[in-house]
Amino acid sequence: MVIVLKPSSTNADVAALLGRLRDMDAAGYVGPGQPWTVEVLGAGPGFDRRKLEEIPAVDRVLDAPLAVLQANDPSRGGTREVTAGLRATIGARRLAVIAGPCSVEDEGRLLETAAAVVEAGGVGLRGGAFKPRTSPYSFQGLEDRGLEMLGRVREKTGLAVVTEVMACEQIARARPFADVLQVGSRNMHNTPLLRALGEQDKPILLKRGWSATLEELLLAAEYIRQAGNDRIILCERGIRTFEEYVRNTLALAVVPEVKRLSPHPIIVDPSHGTGHAHLVEPMCRAAIACGADGLLIEVHPTPARAWSDGAQTLDLDEFGRLMKGLRKLAIACDREL
Amino acid sequence: MVIVLKPSSTNADVAALLGRLRDMDAAGYVGPGQPWTVEVLGAGPGFDRRKLEEIPAVDRVLDAPLAVLQANDPSRGGTREVTAGLRATIGARRLAVIAGPCSVEDEGRLLETAAAVVEAGGVGLRGGAFKPRTSPYSFQGLEDRGLEMLGRVREKTGLAVVTEVMACEQIARARPFADVLQVGSRNMHNTPLLRALGEQDKPILLKRGWSATLEELLLAAEYIRQAGNDRIILCERGIRTFEEYVRNTLALAVVPEVKRLSPHPIIVDPSHGTGHAHLVEPMCRAAIACGADGLLIEVHPTPARAWSDGAQTLDLDEFGRLMKGLRKLAIACDREL
Amino acid sequence: MVIVLKPSSTNADVAALLGRLRDMDAAGYVGPGQPWTVEVLGAGPGFDRRKLEEIPAVDRVLDAPLAVLQANDPSRGGTREVTAGLRATIGARRLAVIAGPCSVEDEGRLLETAAAVVEAGGVGLRGGAFKPRTSPYSFQGLEDRGLEMLGRVREKTGLAVVTEVMACEQIARARPFADVLQVGSRNMHNTPLLRALGEQDKPILLKRGWSATLEELLLAAEYIRQAGNDRIILCERGIRTFEEYVRNTLALAVVPEVKRLSPHPIIVDPSHGTGHAHLVEPMCRAAIACGADGLLIEVHPTPARAWSDGAQTLDLDEFGRLMKGLRKLAIACDREL
Amino acid sequence: MVIVLKPSSTNADVAALLGRLRDMDAAGYVGPGQPWTVEVLGAGPGFDRRKLEEIPAVDRVLDAPLAVLQANDPSRGGTREVTAGLRATIGARRLAVIAGPCSVEDEGRLLETAAAVVEAGGVGLRGGAFKPRTSPYSFQGLEDRGLEMLGRVREKTGLAVVTEVMACEQIARARPFADVLQVGSRNMHNTPLLRALGEQDKPILLKRGWSATLEELLLAAEYIRQAGNDRIILCERGIRTFEEYVRNTLALAVVPEVKRLSPHPIIVDPSHGTGHAHLVEPMCRAAIACGADGLLIEVHPTPARAWSDGAQTLDLDEFGRLMKGLRKLAIACDREL
Repeated sequence: MVIVLKPSSTNADVAALLGRLRDMDAAGYVGPGQPWTVEVLGAGPGFDRRKLEEIPAVDRVLDAPLAVLQANDPSRGGTREVTAGLRATIGARRLAVIAGPCSVEDEGRLLETAAAVVEAGGVGLRGGAFKPRTSPYSFQGLEDRGLEMLGRVREKTGLAVVTEVMACEQIARARPFADVLQVGSRNMHNTPLLRALGEQDKPILLKRGWSATLEELLLAAEYIRQAGNDRIILCERGIRTFEEYVRNTLALAVVPEVKRLSPHPIIVDPSHGTGHAHLVEPMCRAAIACGADGLLIEVHPTPARAWSDGAQTLDLDEFGRLMKGLRKLAIACDREL
Repeated sequence: MVIVLKPSSTNADVAALLGRLRDMDAAGYVGPGQPWTVEVLGAGPGFDRRKLEEIPAVDRVLDAPLAVLQANDPSRGGTREVTAGLRATIGARRLAVIAGPCSVEDEGRLLETAAAVVEAGGVGLRGGAFKPRTSPYSFQGLEDRGLEMLGRVREKTGLAVVTEVMACEQIARARPFADVLQVGSRNMHNTPLLRALGEQDKPILLKRGWSATLEELLLAAEYIRQAGNDRIILCERGIRTFEEYVRNTLALAVVPEVKRLSPHPIIVDPSHGTGHAHLVEPMCRAAIACGADGLLIEVHPTPARAWSDGAQTLDLDEFGRLMKGLRKLAIACDREL
Repeated sequence: MVIVLKPSSTNADVAALLGRLRDMDAAGYVGPGQPWTVEVLGAGPGFDRRKLEEIPAVDRVLDAPLAVLQANDPSRGGTREVTAGLRATIGARRLAVIAGPCSVEDEGRLLETAAAVVEAGGVGLRGGAFKPRTSPYSFQGLEDRGLEMLGRVREKTGLAVVTEVMACEQIARARPFADVLQVGSRNMHNTPLLRALGEQDKPILLKRGWSATLEELLLAAEYIRQAGNDRIILCERGIRTFEEYVRNTLALAVVPEVKRLSPHPIIVDPSHGTGHAHLVEPMCRAAIACGADGLLIEVHPTPARAWSDGAQTLDLDEFGRLMKGLRKLAIACDREL
Repeated sequence: MVIVLKPSSTNADVAALLGRLRDMDAAGYVGPGQPWTVEVLGAGPGFDRRKLEEIPAVDRVLDAPLAVLQANDPSRGGTREVTAGLRATIGARRLAVIAGPCSVEDEGRLLETAAAVVEAGGVGLRGGAFKPRTSPYSFQGLEDRGLEMLGRVREKTGLAVVTEVMACEQIARARPFADVLQVGSRNMHNTPLLRALGEQDKPILLKRGWSATLEELLLAAEYIRQAGNDRIILCERGIRTFEEYVRNTLALAVVPEVKRLSPHPIIVDPSHGTGHAHLVEPMCRAAIACGADGLLIEVHPTPARAWSDGAQTLDLDEFGRLMKGLRKLAIACDREL
């Protein structure tokens, strides 16, 4: 149970409320941000919710975390546009396509890929320098060397660089070279990382955990927003189910539901969302048709030789053809590409 | 392990093969249909696969059930169109929209709904007379009385009637009034029902079980086909996962994968696939964009008063607007509506 | 919403209630069994729940299907013992172990297996004559020939025969040879089959669907009970999840929860519940420790040559050792074996 | 594909192997620890696996990550005992019970709880000071103040303190007060945290992610071990499925499978694993019966007033009775308590 105070409330009102809870034999946790929130803890027999609701400084008392989130993020009226780097805007009429290799491997191949992304009309370059891998015996990313490559390719192409950070100490290392800092699926629940990213002046791409509910995704975003950063891009990348012919089950209904519940733009990653290159194109189409603000696509000059995720990666020609094919669909959906 | 014989094989070849298996201390199960198949059972130490492969009548020895299916259904070159009733074709350029109430409740409301379906451009009328319900205390359908209503509304509107049967003995009752016999999600694994439907001269709408893999769906269809009926329409209606904001997770990647692996057309049911009326429209759009051959949509004059599934049901106006809105998208996808 | 009437209610009370609902612009569905239940359908703006609660014949108005079930099955005070055949009781202090091959294959092997089951202290013989198989190219069971083998082995050993039926028409065929009729996981939602089994004078073994919730399992049992048969044995056999090292995830918490909510005994099938012979013994132990009333175990003279499910099947020696090892545990759990 | 080198290999052998891969137009990633491992990256048409296998320094070439893990952790012969604090050993004949509140709230209640744990025969005290919470508006733990309380209660009771760290920078803060550092379910995939914990001289309690496969759990442990710390305790705490009557599905078959594949002891958390106090006792019993090395249980003087997880928490009396009841079972399982 969370008490939301009126916007006009003062520190003294909060202190008085905490005292009142103590009198009722309960405790209170003061949440982040404004307006003030106080979670009721350890309520015993003396606790009386209606008495709280009568306190003048109290706006309302809520049980559902999503209701608290919405009480605390008053933005209404559609999607909050997020700009990144020189040319990327996510959440606008124009669809934002971010593409690139799973891992940064080599500057030549990265530049070749980036040139193809520009050519095809993409606005961002993805590429992992810090790689979260299931096995410690798998390639873990080129780290700083990879970041520097991303930085140089950015200079040459003007693409917005999107790259993942997995720990707080990696943020400062990635920041000079990145336009968007990505939270991967495995770290959606990593609240210290979310808070640290909330203190950055860069947009954050927050991927849904592969077993996270929609509520959990929106509350993870709220950790970032409450820490001061509302430039958040959500990303659906598939959930873990019993299905076998795909790596993940792309759960596209989340796209319109995010539009209904949240001001954050949402993009879709059909590469991880299916695990197979031949399913990327139809799932890009489905994502656009149901309202996604953009796409995150794995592209590599020779997917069969990619250092990771080759099976779900398009080659440069396939990517070019994909983008051309999507244009007509985008227009029919009142979007541009 | 299944042995597929050459098309030219005779009964004598099968008998000889079974004898050969006995000599190898194994047994054989002769499968349905043509070409002949023999499953190897109980193979002991004397078993030698290569010896089987050398037998002249043997075409190949396969381990994967899907490979057997594909060896046995030689159709190639796209989707097999299925016609139903007077005006419905599923699997053609024109998208087939089948709509109507969850349950048949009353002839007046059914006719009103059907008229709206015709008006909006739908080709089929759905409506349950036999209802599979979780609780025995829930309404179980009007049964024969409901079927007769469907029959009379069909006469007045020309729509193809799609209705579910849950047991073999219901087939003969439903047949005079139905143009398509539906297998519901709960019965996808009901092999006696599948076989009985394989003997009908009506198209079968086969819904994916809510926890069935794609392979299981295709093999369920094969039970019907092997029994003699290849007029099969597959339907994705969402799977059961951990997600909470939807009734089911609509797993749309199955649409292009069915197109790749199977000649059967596939339609999508966004009503069950989400459980919420407000998500039906975006999921219809996504389904069309990724290649679905049609839609199955719950519609009712006053959804709040529907006897079942009201929360996921559109009213007649919403349905009309939906259909109008889909037309532009269909054209952009090289389909008609 | 379901209205439960008082036990003393008459047909006239039901008729009056239905009239009252009509006056309120709603309809009513009269459920099966006693006491009378009426589901409210199509309630419009004129509907007033409190007015219903004031009607003298009305006991209560309930929203949760499980609450209706419990209002309608007044048994209290622990598990309802179910006897089967000559020597089997399920739900008593003595644990009931039912074992045997996945499929009936051959009378000699069946008798050899049954003798080992008797020797080890089992009370029932499982064996499938009608086999639900994913692929139509897989062995579908020996049908009547298999049932006759079961019947002859029963005569020789006195074991209770447990065998699956998949369709209403199979019931009469199986009845002469079976002491317990089994509903398999794929058919838990097959309500026509459940109702037909409710009219039999044989106990029913109802396996949980691999994606059925606990509520769905209990309501499936209620279909059988309401049709007149309360000799029901529930069975947990694992659910379908993302886990890969097992065929299913054995969800044992269902055992104590069934004990809390239902009078039906519950047994556990660790063979399907894990898919691996080496996991059967530890999961038998876990099942007993958390209160299961018995076990359903796949056993075969030479598992590697079993016609189905060999990987999860114990050989006769392994089964004998398993049973010996379980005895000490059973005693520590205040059970016998 | 990972190449495992012979234990006798030198830096020069690794360098030669990398050169060889370059000649084959591939790259190599040198993994952590000993013996040396090299992952093959970007293999092109010139790549020849057999040539690698012929190199004298190469022991084997493996595809499965678990096989690499087992090649690199040569321990055999049962579970590796882990000692913690003054009196706790996990993985020995005596079952290790670790109990305490979800969150550290107040020193008085913590001490009262700890005294009850000692009295009942527990060896460890759990209590969260850093709390991973879905909502930023929920209590996030007392942090350093909570850690200090744990430290003082440890001094008074001698219990081993088990507490969670969620970020690398929290390790140094928790270390002085903790005997075991816990990785929570949300952080199982947090590889920077795993590596940092691998550099500690404290045992690590690694909880399975709620959607992690068994392979992923074992490879997460391998990140810790490869960084230098083999004092790892695994913990099953339930997975996320479609089930509704429990918070998670406790997947106990993982216990015997861990015993088969890994030297690390494994304990079970039935509190998170079910979400309901009334299911804790039967799941403790099941866990012991299938071979768990211990239990992690939430206990609080007044669960209804606990600041988090009250519904799944036992009170002190319930905990005392539980422990008494488990003793007989433990003996029947050749364990002590």
